[in-house]
Amino acid sequence: MSTISPMTTTPTPHVGDKIQHSSQYGRLEAGEHIGLSRESLSDSDRQVRDWFVQEAEGLGCHVKVDAMGNIFAILAGENNSIPPIGMGSHLDSQPAGGRFDGILGVIAALEVLRTIKTHGIKTYAPIAAIDWTNEEGSRFPKMCAGSGVWSGSESLSECHNLEAIEPPAEGESPLTMGTELRRIGYLGQTPSSYVENPLSAHIELHIEQGSLLEKAEKKVGVVRGVQGMRWYTIHCHGREAHAGATPMSERADALVVLAKFAVKVEELSIRDGAFGTVGVMRTKTNSTNTVPGGAFCTLDLRHPSEEVLGRIETELRHYLEDLSTHRSGITVSMERTWSKRSVQFDQVARACVKAAAVENAGETMTMDMVSYAGHDSAETATVVPTAMIFVPSKGGVSHNPAEYTSGEECDLGAKVLLDAVLKYDQHLRKTAAASL
Amino acid sequence: MSTISPMTTTPTPHVGDKIQHSSQYGRLEAGEHIGLSRESLSDSDRQVRDWFVQEAEGLGCHVKVDAMGNIFAILAGENNSIPPIGMGSHLDSQPAGGRFDGILGVIAALEVLRTIKTHGIKTYAPIAAIDWTNEEGSRFPKMCAGSGVWSGSESLSECHNLEAIEPPAEGESPLTMGTELRRIGYLGQTPSSYVENPLSAHIELHIEQGSLLEKAEKKVGVVRGVQGMRWYTIHCHGREAHAGATPMSERADALVVLAKFAVKVEELSIRDGAFGTVGVMRTKTNSTNTVPGGAFCTLDLRHPSEEVLGRIETELRHYLEDLSTHRSGITVSMERTWSKRSVQFDQVARACVKAAAVENAGETMTMDMVSYAGHDSAETATVVPTAMIFVPSKGGVSHNPAEYTSGEECDLGAKVLLDAVLKYDQHLRKTAAASL
Repeated sequence: MSTISPMTTTPTPHVGDKIQHSSQYGRLEAGEHIGLSRESLSDSDRQVRDWFVQEAEGLGCHVKVDAMGNIFAILAGENNSIPPIGMGSHLDSQPAGGRFDGILGVIAALEVLRTIKTHGIKTYAPIAAIDWTNEEGSRFPKMCAGSGVWSGSESLSECHNLEAIEPPAEGESPLTMGTELRRIGYLGQTPSSYVENPLSAHIELHIEQGSLLEKAEKKVGVVRGVQGMRWYTIHCHGREAHAGATPMSERADALVVLAKFAVKVEELSIRDGAFGTVGVMRTKTNSTNTVPGGAFCTLDLRHPSEEVLGRIETELRHYLEDLSTHRSGITVSMERTWSKRSVQFDQVARACVKAAAVENAGETMTMDMVSYAGHDSAETATVVPTAMIFVPSKGGVSHNPAEYTSGEECDLGAKVLLDAVLKYDQHLRKTAAASL
Repeated sequence: MSTISPMTTTPTPHVGDKIQHSSQYGRLEAGEHIGLSRESLSDSDRQVRDWFVQEAEGLGCHVKVDAMGNIFAILAGENNSIPPIGMGSHLDSQPAGGRFDGILGVIAALEVLRTIKTHGIKTYAPIAAIDWTNEEGSRFPKMCAGSGVWSGSESLSECHNLEAIEPPAEGESPLTMGTELRRIGYLGQTPSSYVENPLSAHIELHIEQGSLLEKAEKKVGVVRGVQGMRWYTIHCHGREAHAGATPMSERADALVVLAKFAVKVEELSIRDGAFGTVGVMRTKTNSTNTVPGGAFCTLDLRHPSEEVLGRIETELRHYLEDLSTHRSGITVSMERTWSKRSVQFDQVARACVKAAAVENAGETMTMDMVSYAGHDSAETATVVPTAMIFVPSKGGVSHNPAEYTSGEECDLGAKVLLDAVLKYDQHLRKTAAASL
């Protein structure tokens, strides 16, 4: 890319202290580890949002909150008639998650803004730090709900009506994303739409959540794209019966069917190099001496190839059909509740990340790779030029309080983010100049 | 059995009206069904006990109440120096139970005494109708507590100190079996012990609580014994990990381990003709996109042979060990939380029941069977000759107001009980004569 120039003289944003500080909101002590329990739109999510807004406003940012609670903290550039270059990720965590997944990207974005501001770096475009709502999809079961609505792949009203998985209090209606956004004060006025509230690009720094960088002894990953993902809910209905008086041959045991399904998921995933996970399973009748009359599970299935995903899905459906055909009284439904096609990131944005990575970490410490996990960037990539930067996760551990990326690794990631954004900003400036 | 003679000329005790009458105590209307809510040592249990004692005394019975509230209503025989032949069951119900489970056996016993008295039938031994305390184990969580203490398998003081599951009133001590026995006036003076207050035998009429008789179109079941039961809780600990970035080979997925366990339980149960049920299963982390770091399930395992139960338990333990050995990061515990050994009923008592059943219902309407549920007779069988008579349960439904056995079926059961008791009485008379 001839438009991309070295940025090695920019200062390094320091993110460790801020990650430390912000982890007081939803802090989770788990043995020797400190993690986070900061599910989307919870009280601790409100606290960290308030803190983020306060920090951004302290830097002179203009802060907008959209109808999905996505927060855009925008530092003005020279030309504020063009959309900001966004640096987004998420501040919510899994119920027992780590301090880095998502958090690093938002905190680094804030520190990039601070560096730009403090060091008087002049940007052509405005630059935004973004907190996307409910990336995790744990409390409200839709991953990347905020960036999905913004990108037009999810419906605002469906997301507002999405119920929290915790049971409502006695006599109360279920909590929804809409009611919880209102309760915590983040049901914003800005339309949640890339059309009405656009970005020029989206660059996201994230921990790898795998161990490829660590195993390859690399420091920075330049992400080519995101593998395809499909989520399913599987409900099995059988027949409750006395555990001590109903012969095995006369049972319609809903749990055994889903247990066999979970075993099959593992078998096919190993065979095809896919990622298959039954993350939630429960019996609907909860009595030791009653044959389960109902059971429920989820499936998360991922692979870079849509063809492989399709094949595994078909085989699993046939397997469930076979099981229900051979067991009288069993009915099973397998509903695909969500899916994301595999994504290829933008060539220019990727080149900016690659150049920034090589300059800061060196060619030998930089690696091209695919993201196995879903990210807000997989949403934004469908509507604006998008790229991602990965830094190592110790032992590949994520969604766990033991999740860890060192301060140096975080800072290097933030520096690559800063330089990639400035390179993309130069690209915008030059493109604008060329079109005059 | 050469000592067993036909009894077809005895009159039939009628139990329907008395079941109807006694169901006013704790009557539970549930839609079209009338059930019972008469938990042990409640006010309605006191009322039905008072009525039972009054009826028995009206027949000239000597009534004894033991230290567990077990009631023995004894009609004298020719030789009152030998212990009575007991006809026992229970008058307590589940919180939302039926009018037959337990009740039939006590009411039929009372009507057998009435028939003996009214028709001037001379018995060699005294004959007793018995109400055993807290068979259900719902309000005070120990099944067959009254018959268990009497048989020496449970401790009197532990049962007296057993707390009711309902929370105590504000500022009050918890209610216990001991305090409730005293409150309702049934903390008796007679020792609760088969040694100090013995029986010659125990014969129990009970509804089947299953549908084997109905399906086989039989009227009377001759129960060979009660199968052994073992309850377990199984906890599996793995490692939470990202569902989209953790290779299958690096996972410690707690759910897959317990899913394989549930499949194995079914496989071994089918192989050995056992009843194996994983009634409760749940993941401890409930996120679609997190590899489950913990999972829990229960196991209810039943078979008439202790050897078979032991073999299956051992194989399941080895299976779990193998799984945890081959999956790094997995630990599993399988704890046996409760068990009852299998019981074989007495040959002579069973033969008396069989002969009485065949004479009254016909060979083709009589069926030998195992009791899948626990009963007071499983307790008494460990210390005195015991047998049981089953009559059909409509649709196999029990522990439910919809529980139903027709008046004719109840009367036939009572007639078999009468004749079986008279046959056992003849056996005692002949044995005594032979030993002179």
